[in-house]
Amino acid sequence: MNTTAHADNDTPISVIGLGLMGQALVGAFLKSGIRTTVWNRSPEKARTLVENGAVLAATAADAVAAAPLIVVCVTDYDVAHAVLDPLADALRGKTVVNLTSGHSEGARDTARWAAEHGVKYLDGAIMAIPPVIGTEHASLLYAGPQEVFDAHEATLASLGRATHLGDDHGLASLYDVALLGIMWGVLNSFLHGVALLETANVKAGDFAPLANDWIGAVTNFVSAYAGQIDEGSYPAHDATIDTHWATMVHLIHESEATGASAELPTFVKELTDRAIAAGRGGDSYAAMIEQFRKRTA
Amino acid sequence: MNTTAHADNDTPISVIGLGLMGQALVGAFLKSGIRTTVWNRSPEKARTLVENGAVLAATAADAVAAAPLIVVCVTDYDVAHAVLDPLADALRGKTVVNLTSGHSEGARDTARWAAEHGVKYLDGAIMAIPPVIGTEHASLLYAGPQEVFDAHEATLASLGRATHLGDDHGLASLYDVALLGIMWGVLNSFLHGVALLETANVKAGDFAPLANDWIGAVTNFVSAYAGQIDEGSYPAHDATIDTHWATMVHLIHESEATGASAELPTFVKELTDRAIAAGRGGDSYAAMIEQFRKRTA
Repeated sequence: MNTTAHADNDTPISVIGLGLMGQALVGAFLKSGIRTTVWNRSPEKARTLVENGAVLAATAADAVAAAPLIVVCVTDYDVAHAVLDPLADALRGKTVVNLTSGHSEGARDTARWAAEHGVKYLDGAIMAIPPVIGTEHASLLYAGPQEVFDAHEATLASLGRATHLGDDHGLASLYDVALLGIMWGVLNSFLHGVALLETANVKAGDFAPLANDWIGAVTNFVSAYAGQIDEGSYPAHDATIDTHWATMVHLIHESEATGASAELPTFVKELTDRAIAAGRGGDSYAAMIEQFRKRTA
Repeated sequence: MNTTAHADNDTPISVIGLGLMGQALVGAFLKSGIRTTVWNRSPEKARTLVENGAVLAATAADAVAAAPLIVVCVTDYDVAHAVLDPLADALRGKTVVNLTSGHSEGARDTARWAAEHGVKYLDGAIMAIPPVIGTEHASLLYAGPQEVFDAHEATLASLGRATHLGDDHGLASLYDVALLGIMWGVLNSFLHGVALLETANVKAGDFAPLANDWIGAVTNFVSAYAGQIDEGSYPAHDATIDTHWATMVHLIHESEATGASAELPTFVKELTDRAIAAGRGGDSYAAMIEQFRKRTA
């Protein structure tokens, strides 16, 4: 895994797809002084970008011809294929970086298509919203051959922090949704806490700083449990699953007693019930990993 | 809200309850040079502490007599009352800091009992495991009258970061379980991500640093959404609930396709289905707060 914060590069780029995110990508390339050609099915989306120095290609084929590195950011993989497949010959020897959101199997299929046509291919995921593209607050994940990433890392760093996940083209999509899942995990449990505390007249804005401090502390558990999972051994150095379970009962009780929804902690406790039934009550919370693997029952 | 990292103080203290956590509390007081009297139903738990300078009281009454500040850390509120109630007269004018885990109504009941008997009372919650008590990594939350907290803040800072939540004695228990709920939210979603990524041969230890970086980024959403909740207005500056929903469908698909459990994202999506059905699809994720308030259906 490889992370780069910033670099210069003068490989010209073409960007295909000018939705909000595509426009942000072009803006960041232009700001880095990179010659950027753009194409979009509806060319009017290019207007402001052209005023800022982008070159508008008349056709997708012209965009592909204009640069050795083509960044694609369209609605979905079907649209990406509809644009790229007819241009396979023109793409031979060039690099496509596909930042379109999609599934891991779509990324792997596209990688096979690219290999068949002699196209170098990276699949990427953007862990940022358009306004922060081009800043250190944007994190972009790339999957595909190390040498293809290395060749364009400096250019891609114009968009934000660039991390290479590995050779498997499916990894960008998988990391993307896994990280978004963590986002919902944080947000939903925070929102439940807000609903609980507002019954005692606590403002969300007063809870948030403590919640965020605590979330910082929890990242230490994440690191420790990751090590236990990789070793397949779950000694309870901090608290056992039985102890967690008892506190989950408290949270459910407080939710019911105060009038917040008990739905989320009830779901969490049910996962834990299963772990205890499976004999994991004396282990650390890392042993809960078994509840997130495929259930054979 | 008030946070103090460290201070000196020479109020003597008595600690009642010498489980693992009680012993850690005594150790931290002793390390700060505070004269500490201890009592436990089973006195043998005091042995090491006495070797380190603690004074063992023969009875709970002796412990109460020995200091103006009594810290209680026992199994539950019933045990706390069994010990303290017969000593109500001896406690008059003194301060009890109850670090026993319990429910908010138990804390409020105990505060009423204390007020009836002229006992100053703080209810507390320890957001730390015993080994870090007495370090900056320990966070302790206190609820009760500001002036009682202020009078003992310097002494309590020996245990770790001391935060006063407010006058309502129920707040420590409520914050405690709300924060633990966030911990499970982080851990479960991380574990689900691990289960998903291990299908592509990614080690948990390789995922954890990216997960933790990302969790750091998500705290910005927590802060922003807290502000929206307090204003009761949910403009989608980043992404709409509809957009989140579409990505939840991706996560469920990847889970099912790769063979990880889809149970957690399915639960998350169902909450979101309800928010969309309630007309919140165009709002920011902060509008999901409504799904965590009591359901009237």
